[in-house]
Formats: sequence, structure tokens, C-alpha cells
Amino acid sequence: MSHREILSSITVSLAERSYPILLGRGLLADLSVHLHSHLKKLSHVLVIIDEHVAKALGDSIQASLVQADGAALLRVSYYVVPSGEKSKSIEQLAQLWEFMSAENCDRGSVVVAIGGGVVGDLAGFAAASFARGLRFVQVPTTLLAQVDSSVGGKTGINLSRAKNMVGAFWQPSLVLIDFDSLASLPAREFNAGLAEVVKYGMILDATFFEWLEANVTAIKGRSLDALTHIVARSCELKASVVAADERETTGLRAILNYGHTFGHAIEALSGYGNYLHGEAVSIGMTMAAKLACSLHMIDESIVNRQTALLHSLDLPIDPPHIPFDLFWAAMQKDKKVQHGKLTFILPDCIGSVKGVNDISATQVSAAIS
Amino acid sequence: MSHREILSSITVSLAERSYPILLGRGLLADLSVHLHSHLKKLSHVLVIIDEHVAKALGDSIQASLVQADGAALLRVSYYVVPSGEKSKSIEQLAQLWEFMSAENCDRGSVVVAIGGGVVGDLAGFAAASFARGLRFVQVPTTLLAQVDSSVGGKTGINLSRAKNMVGAFWQPSLVLIDFDSLASLPAREFNAGLAEVVKYGMILDATFFEWLEANVTAIKGRSLDALTHIVARSCELKASVVAADERETTGLRAILNYGHTFGHAIEALSGYGNYLHGEAVSIGMTMAAKLACSLHMIDESIVNRQTALLHSLDLPIDPPHIPFDLFWAAMQKDKKVQHGKLTFILPDCIGSVKGVNDISATQVSAAIS
Repeated sequence: MSHREILSSITVSLAERSYPILLGRGLLADLSVHLHSHLKKLSHVLVIIDEHVAKALGDSIQASLVQADGAALLRVSYYVVPSGEKSKSIEQLAQLWEFMSAENCDRGSVVVAIGGGVVGDLAGFAAASFARGLRFVQVPTTLLAQVDSSVGGKTGINLSRAKNMVGAFWQPSLVLIDFDSLASLPAREFNAGLAEVVKYGMILDATFFEWLEANVTAIKGRSLDALTHIVARSCELKASVVAADERETTGLRAILNYGHTFGHAIEALSGYGNYLHGEAVSIGMTMAAKLACSLHMIDESIVNRQTALLHSLDLPIDPPHIPFDLFWAAMQKDKKVQHGKLTFILPDCIGSVKGVNDISATQVSAAIS
Repeated sequence: MSHREILSSITVSLAERSYPILLGRGLLADLSVHLHSHLKKLSHVLVIIDEHVAKALGDSIQASLVQADGAALLRVSYYVVPSGEKSKSIEQLAQLWEFMSAENCDRGSVVVAIGGGVVGDLAGFAAASFARGLRFVQVPTTLLAQVDSSVGGKTGINLSRAKNMVGAFWQPSLVLIDFDSLASLPAREFNAGLAEVVKYGMILDATFFEWLEANVTAIKGRSLDALTHIVARSCELKASVVAADERETTGLRAILNYGHTFGHAIEALSGYGNYLHGEAVSIGMTMAAKLACSLHMIDESIVNRQTALLHSLDLPIDPPHIPFDLFWAAMQKDKKVQHGKLTFILPDCIGSVKGVNDISATQVSAAIS
């Protein structure tokens, strides 16, 4: 861990809730330094960490929090979260709340979430709700969390019938993206993260999409330059959307949902955990593009380019076998349903999407079958 | 229920989160009308109601929601909450979340909490967290809830070790205070509400305190004029504090905590539910005044005036027998503890309080024993 450098810095602009995203190498090794330089009046750190990450990095994180960095020594508590979507449960949240109470967390505490989206979502909601709000730092260690869930302030857990159905908009004070943590990420998880990267190109940035098409080899090889570009650009694009519609009230933020209405239904009906989130989104984007094509919003060549890019990144394209009525019913559980109407986010070219209402079950069924 | 009139209206000023408090008679009988005139794009009403209130008023509430008021018919769901502090639990919250999911609550839904502080706090947090935030209407049916918990946006539940430890700041869209609902309120609960009324006089308004001293008989007789004055003035005073410090960040809002640091410890150590919240606050204010007196902030005549007023309103004054070390430890669980330091809110005259730090256990013990 000889390299310790900040390679890029992005600001999420949300008035008094603005915060920096730092991207680089060796950031976790300097965790204590970064916490002290970005958070005032810190008396206690609660590290909430994924069990696999704890095995791999726990010792060095612990060392970084007691190192002689000139700052006052902090009281530190550790809470290990079992890996997997099942930890985004009421039971896990209840256990975490009681742990925070037993550890005397108070408004001088900061919650530091280290892991993937599951840990970030769970820890973020715990931070949002404990004592009606503690400060919160995201240290995403998977590509998916780095390009998506750690940016934007969405936190939450699943209910038995619906994913992410309970939670809060709660902005972190700081996001640390350490590329070192990607070194040991399994290929399947890395690829799943790339689905969200492709999404940003499709919804907002045709140039970025073309760059992805031209750089598949470097991306799959995880070159530092490629990682820095795809993560920084994804964060910038997401930050711009979040800044314009922090709480999903204007409808703009809904474009981030491209592929997700289908994707969430796939995840829910396959049992959480059988598909990685990014895999379900990859299939969902394919379904959304086909639907847009059948509605004459895009022509087939665009569907094919998206499919080819996803395929070249080793992502699944084809939906699992699920009866359509079940699928349709599951989609109606989407949080963006308002007054019983589902809005589909569909592309009208590469780099642009729009929300479309009043699409019938028959139209969807015909497009994706 | 022949009288239907709005007697007073107060605005809680919080920029885009501002909302009105309507006080009057027959407001519940016109629930549907009030919902339609204050909330746009309403597709579904989830009534969360205290079981005792449901028995007494359920039929008329149901009738008011289906009456021919010219507005579109609404889909309505009902959830009955067992009476008592024990319903502010993780288990009850989990059950409510799953119910909301089963009833397909979405962002076109409004949560209407009808009952005392328990229902308002539980339903408010469910509204804040379901789908990351649904609109919320408070219909407080106890005096305590009318003058305190329904105003200001604090919502939450208890953990096994600490009261109100989990929750959100979540402002209602509308508060309806219907004096009809006080008609059947037991004397003990009515009196408990008066403790918070006395608190507003002590912390902010000497004239109001004197008015209370001069009108004990009318207050205890629940005359409509007296009720309107004490509830409206309490709401105004609380609204002014909340507007100046919505999220307890400047320290101003902490003055509302007068009597509560002691009171919460009494509630926690006596088992939630043995003392009504207002009773614990009455004892807590007495302890706080004695502490202020021992620190030479006020003289004994002020302690005595507060004690006499609380006593004339049939409120308890004397603490239960609890070993002091247990009591002190329980106070350290207060959410306002920052960096391990407890701030006591203490009077320096009638109508004014301030926060005092660095008070030792010995000083507290000597003052209140």
C-alpha cells in the first residue's frame, strides 16, 4: 500500500448539504486523516463494515484509526454486517440500532460505511434515523457502490414484498473511493458495476457511451486510468442529476431509474440475491430499450449497440422465465408509482431518456417477449 | 357534533415545509374536506389510529372519509395501533411498514395519524421512512399531543435502552386540532398535557404563566375559551422555536427540553408507561427548578410558584425512589448529549431558560435530594 494519492475530487452541490467525493489510492489507509480533515467536533467513529471486507481489510482499517496522525485519539466501534442483500432487512436494522444505543452513539458520532451498496444503504439509513440523524461517511468498496449507491443520499432497507421500500434521503458528509479495494473484487461483481456505468452513458452522455465502446479491454483489465475515468465520470453525471433533484420531486432524478423498474421486478421475483443488482439492471435496460424500439422512440441499431456493449462486458441480457402477470404486478410496487401510474424511463437516443406514462401491460408484454 | 368551526389558525414557518395548524370543533367530522383543501394529488389515505380513539370515533371518521363532499372518492386504509408507549417499538414499526407495503402505499398516499403522541410519533416515522417519505397529517386527540408532539416534526420510536432514540425530523402537511376529541379524555391524561403548557410559560412567556396561575379553574373545567387559549398559545410558542431551529442544530430548540432530561430518565427507569410523559415532565421541571435554585440562578419563590401551579393542576411533583447513580446513568442517554457532555436547560426567571453545561453529578444529587 505504498501509493497514497488523491486522483480526482468531485463536489456534489446541495447547498449546506454539499460534500466531496475523493477518488484515489490508499485512501482507506489514511482513513483517520480524511475523517479529521472533513468532519468537525468528532468524538466517536462507528465503522459499519461488510464481513468480507472486514476479513480482507479490517486490520489495516483498525491500524489507520489508531495511527499517530497528530489528531486526538478517537473512540471507535465496529459492527460487521453479513454479506449479501439479506442484510438490508428490518431484523438487521433493529440489531444495528440496538448496537448503536449500547455503544452510546450520539450526535458527536460519525457512521463510516465500508463495503458495497448493502452496507452503505443499511448504515446510511441507520445514520439517518439514529438520534434523528448522525453524520455519515461512505467508503464504497465495490464498483457498483462507487459509481452509484454511494452518491446521492439514498439509503434504505427492503421489506418482504419490495426492495428499498423503507429509508431516507440522507446525504453523506464525505465519500472516499479507494481503487485499491477493487483489486480483489470478483469479476462478476465488477461487471455488475459496469451496468450502471453503461446506464450513465445511455441516459446522459453519448460521448461517454462511445468511450466505453472503444475501451472495453482497458475497462475489463481494470487499468487505473480506465477506472479513474469511468468512476469519476459516472459520479459527475450522477452528482449533476442529484443536485438538480435531490429528493425525486421534479421528476428529473427519475432518469437514474433507467432499467431499474424492470430490474427491481427481476430481483424481487428471482429472490433477492440470485441476480446481482447490476445484472438485473443490465437485463432491465435491455428490456427498456426493446420497449422504446417497439414504441418507435429509437431504432433497432441503438438497441443492438447497447446490447453489444453490455454483452462485451460479460453482463446478462436475457430475462429469466417469469410469467408476465407476476412480472407486471411486481413492477407496480415501484416507489415511483404515483396515483397508480407507472412511469417508464426510455431512451430516445444514446445519451438521452425520457419518462413515458400510459404504457399498457399488453405493450410491455409484446415488446419484451 | 353540530358545531363545526375553525377557532384559530397558526402557521409553522419553515420555508417550503411550512404548514398550518387548524384549531376548532368538528374538524374530524370534516376530515375529508380538510384533506382535499390542503393536499394536492391525493390518491390514497392511510389512517393510523389509536385503538381507543378508533372505538370512540372510528365510525364518524369513516363516515367523514366517504361523505359526498364533491371531491373524488379516495381509497382509504385503516391501521389500528394498540394504546400505550409500548407501541413505539421496532416490532410495531415493522408491522406497520409491511402493512403499508401490502396496501400499496405510494407517494400519492397521505398518512393521517389520529391519536396521542404515541400514534403521532410512530405514524410520523413510518411516513418519513416509507418510500423515503410520504405526506403526513397529524390529528392529535390528547391535550399533550395537541400542545406538544404534533407540532415540530419530531417523529420516532423507542429502543430497549432509550426513548425516542430512532426517528426523523419530518414535518406534517397539516395539523388538525379538534377540541371535540378532548371531551372524553380522562382527567389524568388531560392534566399530563397541562405540564407541557406550564413548560411553555416557564421557558418563553411570563405573561402566559401568570394567565395560567389566574385561570386554573377554567382550565380544569375545560372551557372552550380556556382550551383555545392554552392550546393556541402553546402551539404558537412551540412553532416559533421550531421555525428558528428546525433540526436542533443551533441549540435554541433545546429549550423545549426543559424538564425532559430528568423526565426521560424517570420514564426509562420506571418502565415506560408507569408515568405518563407529562407527569414525568412535571417532576422533571420541579427537579430542574430546584437545581437552578441551588446554582443561584433563581430564588426559591420561583421554584415555589412553579410547584404550586403544577400541584393545582393535579400533577405529581416528587420523584420516585430511584438510586441516584442509576438516575445519572440514564440521563447520559439523552440525545442532546454531545461529546459526552449533558446540557441542562434551567430557568433564570419565569419566561426564560438557558442551557448549562459542566454540572457535576454531585451538584445534581445535592439539589434534588
